[in-house]
Amino acid sequence: MDFSLTREQQETVGRARRVALECLEPRAAGYDESASHPWESWNGLWQSGFLAVGVPTEYGGTWVDMPTYVMVIETLAQGCTSSAMTLHMHSVVQMYVDALANENQKRRYYAEVVEGGKLFGSWGSEPDSRGGSGIPRGTSIAPADGGYVIDGQKHFCTMAGAAHRYMVHCTMQGYDGLAGYQLALVPSDAEGIQISGEWDTLGMRATVSPSVSFEECLVDGDCLLGEPGVALETGVGLSFGLGYAAVYIGAAQRALDLTVEYCQTHRFAPDPKLLSHSLVVQRAVAEMTTALQGARLVLYESAGRWHDADAARRMVLTSCAKYLATQAALMVTSRCLQTAGGRSAHKSMPLERLFRDVRTATLMPPNADRALEVVGRAELGVSDEPSQPGR
Amino acid sequence: MDFSLTREQQETVGRARRVALECLEPRAAGYDESASHPWESWNGLWQSGFLAVGVPTEYGGTWVDMPTYVMVIETLAQGCTSSAMTLHMHSVVQMYVDALANENQKRRYYAEVVEGGKLFGSWGSEPDSRGGSGIPRGTSIAPADGGYVIDGQKHFCTMAGAAHRYMVHCTMQGYDGLAGYQLALVPSDAEGIQISGEWDTLGMRATVSPSVSFEECLVDGDCLLGEPGVALETGVGLSFGLGYAAVYIGAAQRALDLTVEYCQTHRFAPDPKLLSHSLVVQRAVAEMTTALQGARLVLYESAGRWHDADAARRMVLTSCAKYLATQAALMVTSRCLQTAGGRSAHKSMPLERLFRDVRTATLMPPNADRALEVVGRAELGVSDEPSQPGR
Amino acid sequence: MDFSLTREQQETVGRARRVALECLEPRAAGYDESASHPWESWNGLWQSGFLAVGVPTEYGGTWVDMPTYVMVIETLAQGCTSSAMTLHMHSVVQMYVDALANENQKRRYYAEVVEGGKLFGSWGSEPDSRGGSGIPRGTSIAPADGGYVIDGQKHFCTMAGAAHRYMVHCTMQGYDGLAGYQLALVPSDAEGIQISGEWDTLGMRATVSPSVSFEECLVDGDCLLGEPGVALETGVGLSFGLGYAAVYIGAAQRALDLTVEYCQTHRFAPDPKLLSHSLVVQRAVAEMTTALQGARLVLYESAGRWHDADAARRMVLTSCAKYLATQAALMVTSRCLQTAGGRSAHKSMPLERLFRDVRTATLMPPNADRALEVVGRAELGVSDEPSQPGR
Amino acid sequence: MDFSLTREQQETVGRARRVALECLEPRAAGYDESASHPWESWNGLWQSGFLAVGVPTEYGGTWVDMPTYVMVIETLAQGCTSSAMTLHMHSVVQMYVDALANENQKRRYYAEVVEGGKLFGSWGSEPDSRGGSGIPRGTSIAPADGGYVIDGQKHFCTMAGAAHRYMVHCTMQGYDGLAGYQLALVPSDAEGIQISGEWDTLGMRATVSPSVSFEECLVDGDCLLGEPGVALETGVGLSFGLGYAAVYIGAAQRALDLTVEYCQTHRFAPDPKLLSHSLVVQRAVAEMTTALQGARLVLYESAGRWHDADAARRMVLTSCAKYLATQAALMVTSRCLQTAGGRSAHKSMPLERLFRDVRTATLMPPNADRALEVVGRAELGVSDEPSQPGR
Repeated sequence: MDFSLTREQQETVGRARRVALECLEPRAAGYDESASHPWESWNGLWQSGFLAVGVPTEYGGTWVDMPTYVMVIETLAQGCTSSAMTLHMHSVVQMYVDALANENQKRRYYAEVVEGGKLFGSWGSEPDSRGGSGIPRGTSIAPADGGYVIDGQKHFCTMAGAAHRYMVHCTMQGYDGLAGYQLALVPSDAEGIQISGEWDTLGMRATVSPSVSFEECLVDGDCLLGEPGVALETGVGLSFGLGYAAVYIGAAQRALDLTVEYCQTHRFAPDPKLLSHSLVVQRAVAEMTTALQGARLVLYESAGRWHDADAARRMVLTSCAKYLATQAALMVTSRCLQTAGGRSAHKSMPLERLFRDVRTATLMPPNADRALEVVGRAELGVSDEPSQPGR
Repeated sequence: MDFSLTREQQETVGRARRVALECLEPRAAGYDESASHPWESWNGLWQSGFLAVGVPTEYGGTWVDMPTYVMVIETLAQGCTSSAMTLHMHSVVQMYVDALANENQKRRYYAEVVEGGKLFGSWGSEPDSRGGSGIPRGTSIAPADGGYVIDGQKHFCTMAGAAHRYMVHCTMQGYDGLAGYQLALVPSDAEGIQISGEWDTLGMRATVSPSVSFEECLVDGDCLLGEPGVALETGVGLSFGLGYAAVYIGAAQRALDLTVEYCQTHRFAPDPKLLSHSLVVQRAVAEMTTALQGARLVLYESAGRWHDADAARRMVLTSCAKYLATQAALMVTSRCLQTAGGRSAHKSMPLERLFRDVRTATLMPPNADRALEVVGRAELGVSDEPSQPGR
Repeated sequence: MDFSLTREQQETVGRARRVALECLEPRAAGYDESASHPWESWNGLWQSGFLAVGVPTEYGGTWVDMPTYVMVIETLAQGCTSSAMTLHMHSVVQMYVDALANENQKRRYYAEVVEGGKLFGSWGSEPDSRGGSGIPRGTSIAPADGGYVIDGQKHFCTMAGAAHRYMVHCTMQGYDGLAGYQLALVPSDAEGIQISGEWDTLGMRATVSPSVSFEECLVDGDCLLGEPGVALETGVGLSFGLGYAAVYIGAAQRALDLTVEYCQTHRFAPDPKLLSHSLVVQRAVAEMTTALQGARLVLYESAGRWHDADAARRMVLTSCAKYLATQAALMVTSRCLQTAGGRSAHKSMPLERLFRDVRTATLMPPNADRALEVVGRAELGVSDEPSQPGR
Repeated sequence: MDFSLTREQQETVGRARRVALECLEPRAAGYDESASHPWESWNGLWQSGFLAVGVPTEYGGTWVDMPTYVMVIETLAQGCTSSAMTLHMHSVVQMYVDALANENQKRRYYAEVVEGGKLFGSWGSEPDSRGGSGIPRGTSIAPADGGYVIDGQKHFCTMAGAAHRYMVHCTMQGYDGLAGYQLALVPSDAEGIQISGEWDTLGMRATVSPSVSFEECLVDGDCLLGEPGVALETGVGLSFGLGYAAVYIGAAQRALDLTVEYCQTHRFAPDPKLLSHSLVVQRAVAEMTTALQGARLVLYESAGRWHDADAARRMVLTSCAKYLATQAALMVTSRCLQTAGGRSAHKSMPLERLFRDVRTATLMPPNADRALEVVGRAELGVSDEPSQPGR
């Protein structure tokens, strides 16, 4: 066992920290307020190489292993939760491309990212599903003249109107259930895409994730990633949860750092001492620090075991990490407000934004309840049908 | 012991419920978004008699006893947290008037409320204080030609620019510490009042509580409530905490009711059943219901024991109630979002507003840490100097 | 609403307090160590009239209403958790007699209690059941020459070998499921009763609850309480949970009182002050006090609403009370040890016994998980089949 | 970062597991019941080499690095909490010998362990101290004819009457405060040692830790470890907390494993399924598993950073580990009883012993409150006087 970072990891994380604090954080409040796409932050991520962190080096990417990846996402989230989240989604699409695409597709898509600074979205949610574990039965893809047509409706379509391509989770006509699971990388300028929903939420506002409908949306056959059904077997999608956990921990760590700083520099009458000298503040900071560190190490361990784990094991690794990160980050961001006090609820301080972001982001699938069930079943060796995702 | 309401209490609470749902709730989202004074809601409270709920009946008021009062505030908070909070602050000012004002003052001030529908604010916080338990040493009042002049700065000045009079907590020149504690009912159109701070916060946005500075603000001697130092002895200010607790419980109950309703009407694939049939949802609802009920009964008990309690006892009663209400309401509003899921974080649903309101309002003094200390010291019979409020 | 006790309630509770502290508590450690029947404590309860607290006054009993009853049990549990628990079980049997027995039975059974100081047990658990909500299908009762014969095995047979009569939960031969539910008051000297199991547990040791087998145990037909199936309709059994909650709260309150006393009288170097002056101790005491008070008021409210509630409502009332009492008592007894420190884990101090008793007693049905499900389903208006008790 | 064990670590931990399950666990219940020294278990630890795990290899020991050490203690605690705890205390004494003893002392003491299978105790607590962080001012050591005399009283003297030598924490006559801190390795057969207190506690009963008084106890000058005051500078004593954390986690893990096993093999009517198929059980197991894993990784990280950390940093590392292990182990052992149900409270199952052991052992210094303060102050950069240990 070794808890120290390699020199390369230190360098990469250090670079992410600079981008987070210098490029992302100064813009985060503005994007939050307007609930708009973080264009400038994405540009900064491109310039610093992080947009290609999921692209293999042989295609010009800056690919890193999973432990380094979650540290990068965690660190970037300290600057802007929404930017880190969109980068993560985009990066998982790159991992899907690596696992499923043919050589031509890889060359084309990866070049769009590396040279063009383009973003890729991933749309799975549907109006009548939740929990993220279902079949995309509300969105069909079917062979047609000139390629394939997609019909259906998607919810929570992050980067709608901003990403260059949307990875749409569909079911191939003529297949049953999961056997028909098909990913299609739809160009954002394809016909028949209608952004239909509003986007005005509690937090994660700069992820801009409205509803989108597809009506006879014609795409080139070359947009399809792999054969029907194979996407699930790759287990790539399970890494969504690892990155989510990293985002929560990063955001909560930033809230804690700001709170510590606040307590080191503020005093209130009649107590002549700084807040940092208050036992109540010390206890709160300690409870937050230790909870966050426990969650962080479990995340790193899950990432460290990722490469050698099969899909069933990855499901458990991602659930452990996401559950603990959820609990720790919710507790930390709420207690930071409590500790710093009423003035910290003003929008001129970042704490309230981090609080809203964490409460919102932790609702993403698999949610805490689903994660608990996965871990519990694995520990108990129960392998029959899980309960319904609705649970 | 008897847990049933009198017929009169039932009637009053029933009326409050109608006002909450018909008048307050439809406007709450709008006032929240614009962070503006809830004029129409206040008007509704006036029309329905609740603006005078702290005014004795002999002056035309609709005065009720403390248990009924907290039920009214709790019920109104189900419609609009901010409106209920401002009504509560206004009502505590009326209680101060009852305890401290002379006959002439009572006639004038009460008429302004009963006949004029005017609101009264109460401003105690200062830039270098927090916890609400300190001496208002940053705001002085001194005799001058034509009355008294007030100088100083106040923070969190709820209803600034909207209330008819502001009850300003000052220290009388020439007195030491708490002996100089002086309340002054400053007309909102007095010279030398400058609303200086911005107001853009996480929640409780319609309480509009910016910073205000007083510079040689001249007021008539008739504005002073009682002699220096007597205001504290009345123990009236301790009822602030009871009303806060009522606001938290009301807001959290509304969030829970909406969540129950949501779960009774929504289902998500692949589970064919309504969310309400999920064991996870049932457990969450039960944990929220029982926590809220425990906090509510402690609040009612504190209110029931209020009349016969001395100031020291009231300090404990208010702290117990506020602490439990804080914990329950924070837990409930966060878990409601968890239970209803990602769609409930949209601003088109009231859950996220109630969540923001509760996290913000519970920071008001005495905060949870201060309340714990008060209760603990009382139980342990420790009567020497408490620790600093900054804790 | 009124939170004060009537003069009669004050008197009754005051009397219970004296019995608890003077008669029960001095013997509690001894009975715990030997895991033996608390004969002397039972005698004290008889002498003071509490053995007949469930017997109507017209039969010479000291019957009290449900709110007074739970206060009595709570108060007695402060002296000896096991004695209070056995008294409660015995008293519920008296309530069953009231609801189901004919005049002759009442006269006979009640006289045994009032004049003879006899105890009655209630045995429902079976080897392959748990949660207490099932059908006693492992224990049959069938007509036979000279009466009825009982066959089967029972677990957790409190007061086995000490009670005068055992109320055995059986299924009447020839009936299906709950329709055959039959209570029989078996004399302890009946043939065919074999106390077969050991009794050596973590806590509640003086409840002496081994396993018992019935083999062709012949009883007089006069031992049967009511017709098959009617016992459940009475809803009497639902009051078990109320008394359990009272026991937990009483035990936890005693632990808290002892801890407060300890902190008021002990100091440790290098701190020259008493423990009671420590902020950490004050906060712990406050968290325990408020949690216990919330649970207590919910228990009192449930007891207050008992009389007018139907069986479905009683199920919810008892579940709310038992759930909150469980959570509060587990937290309080564990934190009392934490607060008083290592020396309080010695058996020469009662804290560790109360800690063991609460952890053990709270496992009794309906356990916390079952209680949550009941409350949640009621709040959500879900009335179809509950999940399995095994949950 | 690397979360896998070296081959040597795997081998050592594997050996510890065999000793735990084959030698320690079968005897644990007996030693617990009689509250007697675990002689046979100690013999097994000697035979398997673990008694010398703190003895350098050049003296015939089986010394391992700190990460391996905590894994060994954690693993042994799965078999018998008390045996693992006494081995840990004994091993810290060996580490003190390594840091402070001269060559002659090392040869003699280490031989007693390696060849003789002798145990060493460490006694620091005193009647009027707690928290373990104070000066042993109640126990003096002074030069005298033929060596030194020790006078004073010690509490919680683990292995009294069984260990071969007791490392007594004293203050050297003529020195002030911590400057006089002196460790003396007193032979158990020295004159003037009186085991005076009873030992009958909630848990950790086989650690047999009564009170002991020293009256003119004469020891050879060769018994002293180092000069006055130097023992503290070594920082060796801070490793007590790491081992404690390992004991808690080991005990809790064993409780969890037994609970999982129970749920995999038991079913209760009317549910036809095994408990392991219950969603409530699955959630409970998952919450326990993840909490334990977070605490474990923080412990491993603290152990991993130990070697290069200075005393101030070690204080934080040990506090983080002990705090999280305390919280996780208390929660896990209590919930295991809840999950397995009433039958698991019987002494014939090990769960209740593990529950008692963990509640008792976690009271050892630094307790959770002290640990929180240490971590909080470090995070906040507060370096002036800490609050009194009494807190």
